[in-house]
Parts: sequence; structure tokens; C-alpha cells
Amino acid sequence: MAGFQAPTLARLIDQFNRLPGIGAKSAQRLAYHVLNMSAEEAAEFSQAILDAHDKIRKCECCCNLTDDKICPICRSTKRDASTICVVEEPKDVVAFEKMQEYSGVYHVLHGVISPLNGVGPDQICIKELVKRVSDGNVSEVIMATNATAEGETTAIYISRLLKPLGVKVTRLAYGIPVGADLEYADEVTLARAFEGRNEL
Amino acid sequence: MAGFQAPTLARLIDQFNRLPGIGAKSAQRLAYHVLNMSAEEAAEFSQAILDAHDKIRKCECCCNLTDDKICPICRSTKRDASTICVVEEPKDVVAFEKMQEYSGVYHVLHGVISPLNGVGPDQICIKELVKRVSDGNVSEVIMATNATAEGETTAIYISRLLKPLGVKVTRLAYGIPVGADLEYADEVTLARAFEGRNEL
Repeated sequence: MAGFQAPTLARLIDQFNRLPGIGAKSAQRLAYHVLNMSAEEAAEFSQAILDAHDKIRKCECCCNLTDDKICPICRSTKRDASTICVVEEPKDVVAFEKMQEYSGVYHVLHGVISPLNGVGPDQICIKELVKRVSDGNVSEVIMATNATAEGETTAIYISRLLKPLGVKVTRLAYGIPVGADLEYADEVTLARAFEGRNEL
Repeated sequence: MAGFQAPTLARLIDQFNRLPGIGAKSAQRLAYHVLNMSAEEAAEFSQAILDAHDKIRKCECCCNLTDDKICPICRSTKRDASTICVVEEPKDVVAFEKMQEYSGVYHVLHGVISPLNGVGPDQICIKELVKRVSDGNVSEVIMATNATAEGETTAIYISRLLKPLGVKVTRLAYGIPVGADLEYADEVTLARAFEGRNEL
């Protein structure tokens, strides 16, 4: 669009356009929004991007993203360090914490085993988990990877590594989502819900 | 979300969340995307935001956003400076330029007169337009504000200011959008299309 748009503006639009889920129109809208920000707001936004890169790292214990060496959850004395909930991504930790019912700790894999995408067990944080469990004091590992083929494979793979270490490995229950209509549940979910039925 | 999300990450998510049309989930997705950028990409993104603020300004002639004192369109000797197309926003210039049929110049108002939103004639770039026309050498001013009540009011207001200066003031044609089904055109548009009918 050379010639009829300021290059600096075109570059900012391009930067937004590269973000996932941001198309050309949205990128333009966001760029104009930035132009209308105060200088302080723009500086703050710009700095937040740099800081995220400079300061955020993986917790040395659970691999969750944190500003510190050890994340606040691993550091907390109120959390039960003998129960580890294994999730795929940091945002899953946020989802569990919103539930406000889990008092154990986490382990973030940063992905799933996915041969099709070239992701093997060594590319995700499995060895860190095995080390935590080998170090002792862990009684239960809850596999909370997504209910996808890859999440499932990863859960099974990890459970086979951990069971010989004498730890209990569990998996989140499958079933009908609360509030959902049976009619709209797919047959696999329905079959799993049937298998996992509980006595009332 | 204190406690279970790194503050630096939470701050970046918050920054994205403040952008128009970006909700909590999208903000999280964008922030994680930034974390996965290379350091160079993040620096580039961050710098583009700052540059947009530092370098982009209004063209001293047409008020369009530009990196220079005078924008490339106003500077160009290939453009017909005697025809001015008046638009609301810089993105409208982009839309017209994509058409590749207009060889005149532009004037960007940066808004419309909107008493409900506290925007009067002095808050948008009307006086700059009046000055351009008073300076002479302008034969036609095409009002290309949006077909909204405010765009319409602004066009009429400006035409009343300009006509005494002896310049021809025109307005974009109203009618059925090309490719549209008559059935779905609203009655006002249809009435305007009827009024503006041309001989074949």
C-alpha cells in the first residue's frame, strides 16, 4: 500500500496483522487505536511486550510461566505438594485456579506429544516431571491434558513412565458437560459418560 | 488473577485486553503469542508502537496521517490539486486509493460533527479545509463523509462554508451497492437510488 499510507503506520498495521486471529481490518483498527493512545499508554504497551520477553521464564519446579525462579504456587506453603496436576499450557493452570477447589500443585508440559507436528516427548517438559516424581514426596499425579487424541496419548505415555515409580496416576473424568443437553452430546462422549457412571 | 499468573504476563494480557474488540480470551492468546516470538520480533513490535507515536503526524496540507511534513499524495505532481475529496478518517483515503480511479487530493477531517458526543466543528479539521479552499486553485470539493446522520450533517455544514468561496461542492451518490439484491436494500437507500436514477 506504498504511497498512500505512512510507512510507520503501515509497519504497525503489519505487526498487528501478524498476530493470530487478527485480520487486515482489525489490524488497521488496532493501529489507529494505538495512534490515539497517550504517549504514556503507548510506552506502557510497548514496554509490556519487551518485559514479557525479558522477565518471564519457566518455574524451575513446575515449568509454569513466572517472573521468579520458583513460581508463587510452588513456593506457597498452603499448597499440597504431594499432588501434581499435569496440564498442557499455562492457561490451563489459570482455568484450574479459577475453579478454587484444587489445593495441589501443577506441572505444565508446554505442549503435547504430536508426531504429526514433529513434537516428541523430549520437546515438552516431561523429564522435569519425571524428576519431580523420582525425587519423592509425590503421592498422586492427575493427568489433565486435553481430551484430544494427542492429549490422551500424552497422558498414557506419561502414566507409563510414572507408574513404575510407585505413584498413583489418575485422569480427569470424561462425561456430559454440566448444563449440556444429552441430545447434542457426541456418541464417544456419551459412551464415556455411560462407562463412568456413578451410583447415586 | 494475582498469585497464579506471572505479573509481567498479566500486565501484557491487560494491555491487549484494553484494545478495542479484544476480549479476555483473545488477549491471553495474543500475549502467549508474544511470548513465543523471537526477541527480535518482540523488539520490532514494541518499537513499531513507539514509532507510530513519535513519527506519525498530520500532513500540513490535507491532515492525513504521514511520516513527513507534507504527505506523498499532496507532494505528488501527478495528482490534480484542484479537486479535494473530503473524508472522515485516514482509512477512507486507503479505501479510495484502492479504487485506483481518483487522481485528485484528499482532506481528512479526523471525525464528524457530533453534538451528542461533544464534537463541534472546531474539534475536526474543517478550518484547515476552508483555508485550503480560500487559498484558491480549488475547483471542486467532493464530500465523501459516511452516509450516516453525522456524516450527512458534516457534509452539509462544510458545503455551506465553502459555497460562498465560489467552489463547486459535490456529494457521493447514494444508491444500491453493486452486486446487492434489491430485496435486501432498505427503503431509504431504495428511495435515494430512485431519485438519483440515470438515463441509460
